[in-house]
Amino acid sequence: MNVALLGFGTVGSGVADMLTQNKDVLYARAEAPVELKYILDIRDFPNSPYEKLFVKDFSVIEADPSVDVVVEVIGGATKAYEFTKRALLAGKSVVSSNKELVATHGTELLAIAKEKGVYYLFEAAVGGGIPALSPLVDDLSHNRISEVSGILNGTTNYILTQMFTQGAPFSAALAEAQAKGYAEKDPTADIEGIDVCRKIAILAALAFGAMVPAAAIHTEGITAIRKEDVAAAEKIGCSIKLLGRAIKENDGDLYIMVAPFLIPKSLPLAEISGVYNGVLIRGNFVGDVMLYGRGAGSYPTASAVVADVDHIARGTVARPAWTDAKEGTPSDFSSFFCRHYVVAEGAEQSAIGIIFGEIEPISGEENAFLTPMLSESNWESCKERFAACGGRIVSHIRLY
Amino acid sequence: MNVALLGFGTVGSGVADMLTQNKDVLYARAEAPVELKYILDIRDFPNSPYEKLFVKDFSVIEADPSVDVVVEVIGGATKAYEFTKRALLAGKSVVSSNKELVATHGTELLAIAKEKGVYYLFEAAVGGGIPALSPLVDDLSHNRISEVSGILNGTTNYILTQMFTQGAPFSAALAEAQAKGYAEKDPTADIEGIDVCRKIAILAALAFGAMVPAAAIHTEGITAIRKEDVAAAEKIGCSIKLLGRAIKENDGDLYIMVAPFLIPKSLPLAEISGVYNGVLIRGNFVGDVMLYGRGAGSYPTASAVVADVDHIARGTVARPAWTDAKEGTPSDFSSFFCRHYVVAEGAEQSAIGIIFGEIEPISGEENAFLTPMLSESNWESCKERFAACGGRIVSHIRLY
Repeated sequence: MNVALLGFGTVGSGVADMLTQNKDVLYARAEAPVELKYILDIRDFPNSPYEKLFVKDFSVIEADPSVDVVVEVIGGATKAYEFTKRALLAGKSVVSSNKELVATHGTELLAIAKEKGVYYLFEAAVGGGIPALSPLVDDLSHNRISEVSGILNGTTNYILTQMFTQGAPFSAALAEAQAKGYAEKDPTADIEGIDVCRKIAILAALAFGAMVPAAAIHTEGITAIRKEDVAAAEKIGCSIKLLGRAIKENDGDLYIMVAPFLIPKSLPLAEISGVYNGVLIRGNFVGDVMLYGRGAGSYPTASAVVADVDHIARGTVARPAWTDAKEGTPSDFSSFFCRHYVVAEGAEQSAIGIIFGEIEPISGEENAFLTPMLSESNWESCKERFAACGGRIVSHIRLY
Repeated sequence: MNVALLGFGTVGSGVADMLTQNKDVLYARAEAPVELKYILDIRDFPNSPYEKLFVKDFSVIEADPSVDVVVEVIGGATKAYEFTKRALLAGKSVVSSNKELVATHGTELLAIAKEKGVYYLFEAAVGGGIPALSPLVDDLSHNRISEVSGILNGTTNYILTQMFTQGAPFSAALAEAQAKGYAEKDPTADIEGIDVCRKIAILAALAFGAMVPAAAIHTEGITAIRKEDVAAAEKIGCSIKLLGRAIKENDGDLYIMVAPFLIPKSLPLAEISGVYNGVLIRGNFVGDVMLYGRGAGSYPTASAVVADVDHIARGTVARPAWTDAKEGTPSDFSSFFCRHYVVAEGAEQSAIGIIFGEIEPISGEENAFLTPMLSESNWESCKERFAACGGRIVSHIRLY
């Protein structure tokens, strides 16, 4: 089985290393050895051990009938989209780490793959090295899934962990993450939840069969979280984590969101620290399952890419499948219910109880309390009424 | 696809329920619907919704060519062994939750299955509902595995969790576990590590290719752990967990053991509480992956059983494979190195340093310290020399 690699960056070089260094482990299982035949990159790598494999023209790969699998780790949705489509149409399976492409064009690409009798697989697009999509699609799909949620971004989890362990404010924790190379110079996609939004869209599509556009997912980042919120969370035995959540309620409603949540430390997602990721899958027979591991990095991500290559080589692929979401999916976020952690000031204490209902004050934290269960529309109207009384919401985080 | 179920106890009834209640989810994926055709049990279940499916004679199932998969949840290694062998020889795949049978006769049964072109699968034998074997065999096997370890017994983990959270002594925690139905009246197999021994043997066989006999696995239980040890562990930021561990060292040594370990709380295994289980898999590219979920119970275990049935129905089985271990596998436990937590009394303080080397006292805990890295044979000779000085080891737990 011959593999062509598109892109020789962080992930691509890891894939080349794994296909080379672990060749015997792959070979031992597959009926035919897995060989890396081409690497496509516009740059030159004169001293690379893979020097002889480099090509600059995708047509070479497209036209070579001996290439069975194309690994796309270019990223973005332009060249990667074009090459993926051409490879699939040429009857080659495509393995990808490209969450943006999967979330935007995955429905079309999966349909082409099925039509051509090949595969489009993307374990590496969510949760780095963690086997998450394969367990969801192949090992737990016989459960009726009611929730798939995850800590899906190592950068933000590192920042939040630093805020908890060092008492650092957000800006200092971000600066440290940038200094350590965990956060990019422009960290917007991470800290505003955009990266998680794409990943939870993919998880939700696999769990519930419908791919929703990013714009339909309520998305909040972590920039508003203060050290004081961290201290208050500790007091009530919670961590604060940026979660992607997809929740199927008994009445059929499907809610998908990205937002920070206070999570009680008794729940395993609360204990995932640093750059690690975790994916929670809740099924009607299995209960809660959590998958934990490195959410990013060259070698862990390469492991997920090569897992898909290996599945193809061994013939153990469970084909991912979904359709584009219809009108009404996801459900309107305004009807999603949860409790809220709130820090509110500038109004009479009595007004708070009248507006928010039976609140639970957080002892030792001035003006901080937990609301009862509120729908999002209720929460919005509480905020309006509170503002009308001269009150101000200083901070607000949902409770898991 | 027709399924016959052998045994209608806790797990068996869960399997029947899942095949029935989640039939549409199974059906949606498999090319043919999965039907429960027979249930074998010596007892009568006159009011069961499955009443019409019961048979008392295994020959009926064996002789019915329409039965594709036999689910063996009888337990033990006598009737279960006979029926499994006959089913495989009759060309039927067998799915099992029976860790005892897999650990004792798995090598032979896997060989028969391969010979007959069918499968012998046992996801439910380790870690209850957690997809653990399938990720190990199918999703991470392209990694060079250096360790598979796990909290594999919910009963002992419940007891240890109660000791940590309630400050209960072992005997009280055990009594509570028995009262809640988490521990059996005769808890020996759980608290002495026998159950974990079988499970780690299976994990090690899948990760490293060799099934070792239970007698070759160093096995300790949790009966000697005192409340004072729990308090000392807390002081140094550790939990105490009963672990099954299989460790492949760079020099090729393979150590397999069952013993309680002090685990730093920064490691995810340390945070697994109550009846939950967790399996850690360490690979050369992926790093650490942990799989977490319910380790026992009717429905979670049924989920793992039906996962295997579903894999067969969908044609996505990665065939488990191992051979019986040769002489020298596992490596002699006496050369395994780790640090030890020790409580020692009755000898001069100076003798401790001379005998155990550069120890690290645990502040505020009289006579408690951590040793430097010691091989097991070194540790044994330290103990002898300490006894010769009139000292007594009050407590001892290895450090992860």
